[in-house]
Amino acid sequence: MTVIYQKVALIGLGLIASSMAHAMRAKGLAGQIVGHAKSAETRAVALEIGLCDQVFATAAEAVAGADLVVLAVPVGAMAAIAAEIGPHLAAGATVSDVGSVKQAVIAAVQPHIPMGVHFIPGHPMAGTEYSGPRSGFATLFDNRWWLLTPAADTDNQALNRLRDLVHAMGAKVDTMDPAHHDLVLAVVSHTPHLIAYTMVGVADHLAQVSNSEVIQYSATGFRDFTRIASSDPTMWRDVFLTNKDAVLDILGRFAEELFVLQRAIRMGDGDQLFDYFTRTRAIRRGIIEAGQDTSAPDFGRVGPSKTHDA
Amino acid sequence: MTVIYQKVALIGLGLIASSMAHAMRAKGLAGQIVGHAKSAETRAVALEIGLCDQVFATAAEAVAGADLVVLAVPVGAMAAIAAEIGPHLAAGATVSDVGSVKQAVIAAVQPHIPMGVHFIPGHPMAGTEYSGPRSGFATLFDNRWWLLTPAADTDNQALNRLRDLVHAMGAKVDTMDPAHHDLVLAVVSHTPHLIAYTMVGVADHLAQVSNSEVIQYSATGFRDFTRIASSDPTMWRDVFLTNKDAVLDILGRFAEELFVLQRAIRMGDGDQLFDYFTRTRAIRRGIIEAGQDTSAPDFGRVGPSKTHDA
Repeated sequence: MTVIYQKVALIGLGLIASSMAHAMRAKGLAGQIVGHAKSAETRAVALEIGLCDQVFATAAEAVAGADLVVLAVPVGAMAAIAAEIGPHLAAGATVSDVGSVKQAVIAAVQPHIPMGVHFIPGHPMAGTEYSGPRSGFATLFDNRWWLLTPAADTDNQALNRLRDLVHAMGAKVDTMDPAHHDLVLAVVSHTPHLIAYTMVGVADHLAQVSNSEVIQYSATGFRDFTRIASSDPTMWRDVFLTNKDAVLDILGRFAEELFVLQRAIRMGDGDQLFDYFTRTRAIRRGIIEAGQDTSAPDFGRVGPSKTHDA
Repeated sequence: MTVIYQKVALIGLGLIASSMAHAMRAKGLAGQIVGHAKSAETRAVALEIGLCDQVFATAAEAVAGADLVVLAVPVGAMAAIAAEIGPHLAAGATVSDVGSVKQAVIAAVQPHIPMGVHFIPGHPMAGTEYSGPRSGFATLFDNRWWLLTPAADTDNQALNRLRDLVHAMGAKVDTMDPAHHDLVLAVVSHTPHLIAYTMVGVADHLAQVSNSEVIQYSATGFRDFTRIASSDPTMWRDVFLTNKDAVLDILGRFAEELFVLQRAIRMGDGDQLFDYFTRTRAIRRGIIEAGQDTSAPDFGRVGPSKTHDA
């Protein structure tokens, strides 16, 4: 592949940035990769494992001369970072981010972007429950969506260049309105994560009275929840604080639906439960057909984690 | 291995029974395997793919002369089946079941078990989101828990024989009080499933207004939920109707916790969210240490389904 950016500055060196570094290196997409992380330990690890050619103690130093700057810090940290780097951005550079929420990031970052610099917000829909500079791997983005939410007046050449990079790292690209992005994500990701956190919290109370059987006999329903609920607390705190309106809307709908089913259980209304459970199979089929998951049972998978238990 | 039961009668030929048939055959644990299913099509498939040596149109015929009878029908169907087979059970036979709820099954089945027949309720904590006679596979139970809830006066020899079979099929065995079983399962499996069904139901409403983006961009949180929520509707209806008290108790706790987090989001209380999300990591670590899951990222897995998205 050919070099797409001469100098990429990764601000924040966690799972997403380190995976980007691996992917860009594996495919020769960046002339040079530099980075900044708040923690001295993270910076040392980034050099030790070869994530970055250079690391800097400040974001301002890292972005100097970069033609691509990627903000890969928690959403709540974006405003301060943008204010810091604004005066140091090179003319013609592109700034993007990898935050899970887009309207709040745009409000935090856009005011600090000087004329002649292109801000194109982005959201790679990929991750694991691991975090930190050692958690990245080059194939994280393979066949995953990477959503971009450019403004109406975004420079087309800059947009296409960023799109090329994202494609070259293995991802599928789509563009979307920021508000719509935040609603869709509230449904497919943010609210499910909050629910998983909540269920694990309930079990945690009971674990103390059930002599750790809850852990020992954790079945798939619950095991999947714990995997989701072990994701990075800082990142998720910021997601909920910054996508508040959409999440509260979806949570309200969720609570209504849950109470309908809870009442059906209390009243012994088997037909209502059966009908509900039958309808939810259809959306699952839709997901398999959309290629976001496979219908194949994981017979060969190490460990039991994809089977179900009742 | 040696034959443990001369004639095993499988009543109901879905995922669990067909997996038992494969496992027993693969390891030579049963002299003969016979079966019954309500549906003529299921019976035909069971013969065609060699699940059973013989199939019968009635459960009463199937259990004749069997030294092990396994009730593998939805919990709501147990009472009628038990009433039907009671008079036809062989002296000294063992009857077990594979229901996800134990108190209700015991109440439904025990009254129909004649003197001299051993009823030992069981619950294999294994499954997939697939159902039917073609969904079974021999390794389904490998390293999974199979809980038995024998009565205090259960014959020890009969219990040990059943335990030997379950071990030989690859599972780990534990015994438990039926009421305690039902509470633990309400926490680790039943309530999580109801929540997953509910969240998928919410998304299903919104999918209609968002032009199927909900499906297209389904992220892991949600994808895991849809997998859970595509399980057999009949089985799950019966689980909720028959483990009603424990599920309603846990649902009540869940709603309280969720409202606390919802309020924290509304109030912008980041500290409370961060603390909650940090605590839930501990129970995840407990599960990994208990060997119920692996901490290894699934880099090599086909398809994207184990990675996370925000």
